[in-house]
Amino acid sequence: MGQVIDPAQLLSVAREEAELGKAEGGVPIGAALFDTTGVLLGRGHNRRVQDGDPSMHAETSAFRNAGRRPHYRDTIMVTTLSPCWYCSGLVRQFGIGRVIIGEATTFEGGHGWLEENGVEITLLDDPACTALMTEFIRDHPELWFEDIGVPSED
Amino acid sequence: MGQVIDPAQLLSVAREEAELGKAEGGVPIGAALFDTTGVLLGRGHNRRVQDGDPSMHAETSAFRNAGRRPHYRDTIMVTTLSPCWYCSGLVRQFGIGRVIIGEATTFEGGHGWLEENGVEITLLDDPACTALMTEFIRDHPELWFEDIGVPSED
Repeated sequence: MGQVIDPAQLLSVAREEAELGKAEGGVPIGAALFDTTGVLLGRGHNRRVQDGDPSMHAETSAFRNAGRRPHYRDTIMVTTLSPCWYCSGLVRQFGIGRVIIGEATTFEGGHGWLEENGVEITLLDDPACTALMTEFIRDHPELWFEDIGVPSED
Repeated sequence: MGQVIDPAQLLSVAREEAELGKAEGGVPIGAALFDTTGVLLGRGHNRRVQDGDPSMHAETSAFRNAGRRPHYRDTIMVTTLSPCWYCSGLVRQFGIGRVIIGEATTFEGGHGWLEENGVEITLLDDPACTALMTEFIRDHPELWFEDIGVPSED
């Protein structure tokens, strides 16, 4: 490569997406797919509310917007929140080599499992990402539980 | 419940979707989401070729077409092929209780992992599903490897 990737800089793109989602009244999680030299391939945010689409988590949205590729070994998934099992499965199946994560305080998905399976994980503990989710879960718990498939009576 | 579910009958809906995908020149994998009494919630097939969308595997397409739900504990995912890690992650994250699978001969995804995590797995070894994938992988290997994120030089 030769070029230095700044994880915080890449995260800022995902955080912009999360802020867009928040402004639209949606689940404030954002993501972006880059190649290993830092070129942006696709960016997106959770679209459950906006499109009535439960399949568009932030990571799947960024992946979708990157379009078709022969493979993903040279890519980095950047997300504001620890990827849930659905999005962790995406990373593992498509062989995405690295995941940069804003925070895993408000929710911990499958990033440990990814690490065990050879994916490079960078966890940034970004206070702005944590604040976004803390506020969202406090104000819209029913939407949050729906987004992760947890019956609200649990 | 009281009502008897016939896995082969549910599979026929997923197989119809796979046949539709084949007729459209796409990846011939189909899926359908039912509730545990056998009511169809959503059906779909892989849309990589048709929509240029790498995120729409058969299972994610059926899940998407079922729309938003508070939770998925009372649902069954039916798919013509063993679910890849991406689609297995979907099943696990959303707490889908049962997966009915056409075949796992041409490709084995994460259904063993799902079983270890409490998901009821029914593997039907359906010859028509196996024939569909055998023919597809023989005739379009590059498309198949792209669909599961495997670099074709491997």
